[in-house]
Amino acid sequence: MTHNLQNQQILLAKRPTGMPTMEHFSFQNAPLPHPEDGQVLIQTLYISVDPYMRGRMSNEKSYVAPFKLNEPMNGRIVGKVLQSKSDQLHIGDKVVGMLDWQKYNTADINNVRKIDENGAPLPAYLSVLGINGLTAYFGLLDIGQPKEGETVVVSGAAGAVGMITGQIAKLKGTHVVGIAGTDAKTDFLKKELGFDEAINYKTTDDMSKAIAASCPNGVDVYFDNVGGSISDDVMNHLNDFARIPLCGAISSYNRTDGDFGTRIQPKLIKSRSLIKGFIVGDYSEQFGEGMRDLSTWLAEGKLTYKENIVEGFEHVPDAFLGLFSGDNLGKQLVKVSEE
Amino acid sequence: MTHNLQNQQILLAKRPTGMPTMEHFSFQNAPLPHPEDGQVLIQTLYISVDPYMRGRMSNEKSYVAPFKLNEPMNGRIVGKVLQSKSDQLHIGDKVVGMLDWQKYNTADINNVRKIDENGAPLPAYLSVLGINGLTAYFGLLDIGQPKEGETVVVSGAAGAVGMITGQIAKLKGTHVVGIAGTDAKTDFLKKELGFDEAINYKTTDDMSKAIAASCPNGVDVYFDNVGGSISDDVMNHLNDFARIPLCGAISSYNRTDGDFGTRIQPKLIKSRSLIKGFIVGDYSEQFGEGMRDLSTWLAEGKLTYKENIVEGFEHVPDAFLGLFSGDNLGKQLVKVSEE
Repeated sequence: MTHNLQNQQILLAKRPTGMPTMEHFSFQNAPLPHPEDGQVLIQTLYISVDPYMRGRMSNEKSYVAPFKLNEPMNGRIVGKVLQSKSDQLHIGDKVVGMLDWQKYNTADINNVRKIDENGAPLPAYLSVLGINGLTAYFGLLDIGQPKEGETVVVSGAAGAVGMITGQIAKLKGTHVVGIAGTDAKTDFLKKELGFDEAINYKTTDDMSKAIAASCPNGVDVYFDNVGGSISDDVMNHLNDFARIPLCGAISSYNRTDGDFGTRIQPKLIKSRSLIKGFIVGDYSEQFGEGMRDLSTWLAEGKLTYKENIVEGFEHVPDAFLGLFSGDNLGKQLVKVSEE
Repeated sequence: MTHNLQNQQILLAKRPTGMPTMEHFSFQNAPLPHPEDGQVLIQTLYISVDPYMRGRMSNEKSYVAPFKLNEPMNGRIVGKVLQSKSDQLHIGDKVVGMLDWQKYNTADINNVRKIDENGAPLPAYLSVLGINGLTAYFGLLDIGQPKEGETVVVSGAAGAVGMITGQIAKLKGTHVVGIAGTDAKTDFLKKELGFDEAINYKTTDDMSKAIAASCPNGVDVYFDNVGGSISDDVMNHLNDFARIPLCGAISSYNRTDGDFGTRIQPKLIKSRSLIKGFIVGDYSEQFGEGMRDLSTWLAEGKLTYKENIVEGFEHVPDAFLGLFSGDNLGKQLVKVSEE
C-alpha cells in the first residue's frame, strides 16, 4: 500500500555564483507519482552526490543540461520497486538510474537498471560498480593506456573516482602516485589502497619538486580530477607521449575570479602529449565490459572502495556541499531509507 | 675540382632571452670538409628557416637537442653532390637532409635523401614536399581526423604549414577557416588557396565573435600553430569531440614574461575534446605514404604553395628573424647557390 506515503523533493532554488550554500536548495512536499504502463514506482534508498553537479547548477551549456530553476535536481539513485506496471521488474527489485532528488520516483523500466544483489552491497552500485568505477576504468584504460612499468599520477586521488583509478593502475603494473589534501587521505592511499606514493598538496611547499621526487622516471599518465596549479606542476614532468585523461577540474568549479595559469600548450608540444576531456557516458556502449572487469576485481579482493554515507534525505544538500571542502574520503552518499 | 672552394658557417654566438637578434649569430670561415667512405660532399643550394629553431637556441630540454654554443646551427637543406664516396649517390645528384648551416657539408649517404627532380622544383622539397607538407598532412589527418562537412580552423594559416593544412582540409570536404595577421594573407588564403573564410586577427576587435561568425556550425578541428589568446578564442567554440593537433605555439617562443591565460581544461572537459602535441618526426615511418599523397595532389594541381626566397648565405639569420615579425607569407627559404 502506498496511499499514505509522503513524497518530498529537493529543488534548485537559486543559481549560485561561486561556492553554493544551503540557500540554493529548497525542500518541498509533492504528490506521490503514479506509474503508468511500462513504469515502476521507486522508493529512494541511496543518493549519490557528485562534483559535476556544480556545473549543472549554473546556466551554462555543457555536456549535461543545467538543472532547471525551482525544479527537482537529479542524479544517480539506488532504489526499491514499490509498484510495477511491467513484467520485467517486480516489487522489491533494486534498481539504479538517473532519478530526481525526491523520496519517490516513477521511471520507465528502460531508464533504470536492475541490480544483481548478490554482486555487492547496494551502495557499491553508486561508486565502484557505478559511474565512478566506470569513469576510472574507461578514462584510465582508454585514454591513459597505462603500460607496465610506467608512472601514473592521479589527482583528487582519495575521491570516488581517484581511488579506483589508482587501484586499476596498480593492477596494470604501474608506479602509482596519488595527490590528495589531508594526511588521512595520503595514509589511506598508501596503506590501504597500495599506492606507491602519495603527496599532500596542502602541506607540500614545492609541489613540482615533490612530484619529481615521487616520479623518478617522469609521468606517463596523469589522470586529472582537479585542474588548477596542481595540474600545472604535474605537467612539468611529462614524459614523451604522455597521456592525460581529463576527468574533472574541481579546483575551478566555484571560482568567480577566472582560472588563470601558465598556458599548457608548450608543455604538450615539447613532450608530444595527449590530453582529452571525457565523461563516462561517452563509453555507454561498453559499460558491460567495464562492469564485468570491475565486478571480477572486486570479487577477487583486488579493489578496495570506501564510502562516506550520511543518513537522511534532509542531508543531501550538505553532503553535496561537503564535496568542495576537501574533507571527504571516498564516495559521498546519502542513505534515504532502509533497504 | 673543389680545392679552391671557401666554406663558411653560421654559428650560434649567444643564447637569446626573448626575441633573438643578429648578435646571436656569427659567421665564420671554415675548412672544406672531406667525405669519407660512404659519404658525399654537398654544396648547399637552399636553406629552410623554421620557427621551431627558436626553441633550439635556448638551452632547454625539448624534442630536439639545443644548438650548441659557438657551433654551426643546422636544419633542413637541399644541396647538390660535389663529391661522392658511395655507389648510391653521384656527382650532380640533388639531396635533402638535416645539415649544418654552412656552404659545404659532408654527410653519410643514409642521412640524406635523393630528390626526384622530375617531381617538383627543388625548393618544394623544403616546403610542400618536405617537412612542412608532412607536418600538415600527419597532424591534420592523424590527430585532426577531419570528416566531410566538419569545420577546420587553422591558425598561422598563411605560414608554411598552415597553408598546406587548410588545403588538405578542403580536399577532405570540410569548411576551412584560416587565421592570419595581414589582409594580404587573408586575401591570399581565400582567393588563391580556396579557404572558405579568413580572419585577420590584428584588425579584428572581438576574435571570439569573429570565429563564431565564420564557424556557424562550431569548430571540429583546430590546427594550432600559434597558441596564446587566439587559441583561447578558438577554444570557446569547440564542438563535442573536437580534435586539436598542436603543432606550434609561436606566440610564446620569444616571451620572457610568462605565457598566462585562462586554463583550457574546463573547455576540454565540456566538449570532451582532444589536444595532442606532435612533431613530424613522430611519423617518420609513414613518410612514404605522406609524400605519395602530397606529390599526387601537387601534380594534379590540387595543392598550391608559396615560397618567399631570399638570396645569399649572409641572409640566413635575417630570414629566420623575419619569421617572428609576422610578415612572411608562405615558406621562408634562403637560396645559397645556383642549382
